[in-house]
Amino acid sequence: MEKKVVKVVKIGGKLIEDENKLREFLNDFSELETPKILIHGGGSMATKIAQKLGYETKMVDGRRITDANSIKVITMVYGGLINKNIVAKLQARGTNAIGLCGADGASIVSKKREVKEIDFGFVGDIVKINASFISSLLEQGIIPVFSAISYSGDGQLYNTNGDSVAAEVAKAMSAIYDTELDFCFEKKGVLTDVDNDESVIKEIDEQLYKQLMNRGVISEGMLPKLHNCFQALHHGVTKIRLGDSNLLKKNSVHTKIVK
Amino acid sequence: MEKKVVKVVKIGGKLIEDENKLREFLNDFSELETPKILIHGGGSMATKIAQKLGYETKMVDGRRITDANSIKVITMVYGGLINKNIVAKLQARGTNAIGLCGADGASIVSKKREVKEIDFGFVGDIVKINASFISSLLEQGIIPVFSAISYSGDGQLYNTNGDSVAAEVAKAMSAIYDTELDFCFEKKGVLTDVDNDESVIKEIDEQLYKQLMNRGVISEGMLPKLHNCFQALHHGVTKIRLGDSNLLKKNSVHTKIVK
Repeated sequence: MEKKVVKVVKIGGKLIEDENKLREFLNDFSELETPKILIHGGGSMATKIAQKLGYETKMVDGRRITDANSIKVITMVYGGLINKNIVAKLQARGTNAIGLCGADGASIVSKKREVKEIDFGFVGDIVKINASFISSLLEQGIIPVFSAISYSGDGQLYNTNGDSVAAEVAKAMSAIYDTELDFCFEKKGVLTDVDNDESVIKEIDEQLYKQLMNRGVISEGMLPKLHNCFQALHHGVTKIRLGDSNLLKKNSVHTKIVK
Repeated sequence: MEKKVVKVVKIGGKLIEDENKLREFLNDFSELETPKILIHGGGSMATKIAQKLGYETKMVDGRRITDANSIKVITMVYGGLINKNIVAKLQARGTNAIGLCGADGASIVSKKREVKEIDFGFVGDIVKINASFISSLLEQGIIPVFSAISYSGDGQLYNTNGDSVAAEVAKAMSAIYDTELDFCFEKKGVLTDVDNDESVIKEIDEQLYKQLMNRGVISEGMLPKLHNCFQALHHGVTKIRLGDSNLLKKNSVHTKIVK
């Protein structure tokens, strides 16, 4: 029997902060006919609110640390404000969404990132996705909307990379469904020239990926994104694309990741 | 066939802010053997955070108004911070909780409170509870934890009275289950003397309720709570109790509401 197609879509924080782009994106997302899962980033809103609350951004060796105040703000802004507003907007479009963080339904279990040179604080690396719970929602016609917050068994919430959440959810769903993964961010795809938005590479396979890395063409921000893509591809996700807020439209310009 | 018992429990904001009481309450809640639903208030945390963010509390005729900034803060604090932390703490106790606001799964639909003398802003009065969705969670062994936020079909989130959410959810569930409703707040029950915490009235029926009201014995804060209780009692909820953070313990002192 052919597996049902499920689409996992990640929307980046910068797109969420642009009201027009978000509106258009949510229209497109609502119109997707397959069962679907949305994972959203948070953007700079958490930083702004942390500043207003008088919380200092803690950096070690140029890396941001998620201290006790930061995880509070992230839970408020990502898990509350952004998540619930996206859900309400999807409901208004006839999409029966449900807003979740990793603790809800034990859906995304993580453990604190190991302390090597740096203690990142409340940053969690995913150890388990509860695919059967997520699948039970999809089978009821309910569309999960995840903020990038996970939890550990002892009741601690953890800040988690949104691209990793998307990749891990897609990998877990691919055991049950024919799973596709779309990353929507501020660029039209992977660019050969970071200053030229039109220099989109249409298709990247592993060989080209390694070449581009060796030639230093891929910008630093793209490296973990592409790493997540190939990880997902090697674990059963069938179709992976990177593009901007128009990615879900037919005939969008984008980068396709292939084996 | 006898209906399954479901317990709807409301925990007030002041109890949530007391770390020891909350811990103990969540232990007791986790140990309840029936399927259960938790509704939580928010307490003063939202006001404190609003102040820190520089948002003024808007009052009209001594009544608090939920303006655009207030509903933002409520969504952050009640829908995010408090809700997700309670869920994570329940998960740590082996209770498979899911944190929801009214928009999630279209569970609590409301409409903006009608403007008469006062425009309360983003305050919603409940028009529909999605009982079949809530029931589908319970049947999967998933325990819903609601913040007191509802939504309208046009995608707006609304601040909603937590006691009303509890009463309306209990009323809706009573069509499917033998539903019990517990209000946990800072007192041991309804008091004959507001300054004497031990003056708990063990049982209140409608006749006594009217007598107490006429004699001015019931404090102003208790009036809407008791109104909600009798409403729920008349709409199929079988057992209603009011008490403090120990209410869920066996042999707790409390007030029972009876027909």
